Amino acid sequence: MNEQAMKDILGDIIRKVLEQLEGALPVVPEAADGVDGIPVELSARHAHLSEEDAIALFGGPLTRVRDLSQPGQFLCKERVRLIGPKGVIDNVAILGPSRGSSQVEISKTDARILGVDVPIRQSGDTAGSPGIILASQQNVVGLEEGLIVAGRHIHMAPKDAERFGVTDNTRVSVRLNSQRPVILEDVLVRVNENFRLAMHIDLDEGNGAGWNTNVTGSIVAKQ
Amino acid sequence: MNEQAMKDILGDIIRKVLEQLEGALPVVPEAADGVDGIPVELSARHAHLSEEDAIALFGGPLTRVRDLSQPGQFLCKERVRLIGPKGVIDNVAILGPSRGSSQVEISKTDARILGVDVPIRQSGDTAGSPGIILASQQNVVGLEEGLIVAGRHIHMAPKDAERFGVTDNTRVSVRLNSQRPVILEDVLVRVNENFRLAMHIDLDEGNGAGWNTNVTGSIVAKQ
Repeated sequence: MNEQAMKDILGDIIRKVLEQLEGALPVVPEAADGVDGIPVELSARHAHLSEEDAIALFGGPLTRVRDLSQPGQFLCKERVRLIGPKGVIDNVAILGPSRGSSQVEISKTDARILGVDVPIRQSGDTAGSPGIILASQQNVVGLEEGLIVAGRHIHMAPKDAERFGVTDNTRVSVRLNSQRPVILEDVLVRVNENFRLAMHIDLDEGNGAGWNTNVTGSIVAKQ
Repeated sequence: MNEQAMKDILGDIIRKVLEQLEGALPVVPEAADGVDGIPVELSARHAHLSEEDAIALFGGPLTRVRDLSQPGQFLCKERVRLIGPKGVIDNVAILGPSRGSSQVEISKTDARILGVDVPIRQSGDTAGSPGIILASQQNVVGLEEGLIVAGRHIHMAPKDAERFGVTDNTRVSVRLNSQRPVILEDVLVRVNENFRLAMHIDLDEGNGAGWNTNVTGSIVAKQ
């Protein structure tokens, strides 16, 4: 067999392998179930308050009611009213402990009720975001900024990050095994020793996906 | 070169091709933009009425206000109130022409407001779905069934179906190039000569994906 004939055969074989693989595309890979399942939690609308704003609204520090899934975070007894130019949302949860500055996380649906155009941001990234009026039974506080729709993200400890092959700030695509199955792209991974494995989506994302408490996510791609 | 040596080299090459392709996995394929873009339309809550219910509620046939994207479908002047066990939704759009039986399509968010557990169904598949009370200024009609959350779907003409390589009832995965990019899985393809190419999602899916009127979808997988 001469060199040219061999090259032709090789070329044919490579073409066939590629064709076969291409025939199978587009591929959305099957997610592994079971051990790789990331618990998916729904973040309902809530506020984080600065100590100053908490005292202005409630006359004292926040009162813990119960712990949340992320260690150190808790739901408070106090509730707050959001007042926007077009509408009001009552009975909004406050999460403790207090932070350096106040931040209110709502959904796009809530933003329409309030009548404010609210950007999608990761928690803490509030620079230039719109303000909102907070009201308790006793007082009113106007935030100059801090109203955001929280970008979806996954909390994980370093050992989880190692298992998934990701690091802090990796962006991943996550398939939810929900009633209306979706792959959420551009999901931020946040790695911290104090984090417990949980993905956080907002109410619109949850309703859109047909979420319930048994839904888990699987990382199907990394960016 | 003997046969065995050639087989070994071939084996090596195939392995390398496969390794390279596998290294790139998991792959969520990039969607083609432009000509393959499927317009994505948001279905706000609406009712289809039987002629009998339309007459009961409004005393006569429905009044066309403007045509919708699907040929023959139109928005009506009349509006209806939905009355559920926990809440009421006013000013709900009615789409014509009238149908054999009445059907009301709402979102999961709406279902919570009304206080009804509503299944996700394709249009027309209302058997065993919950009822709802419809009210106009003049009258009240109780539907025994017909309240659904509409499953996402794509309307397309046969020529589109051919272009996308799908047929009526194919289920596809569709990537939306929205602010919060997602791949919606299990999307029903509906092919009919009278259909104009358009994907329909509901308000929750739209808000969850950060939809706007410029968003298009691309089929990235077929089931």
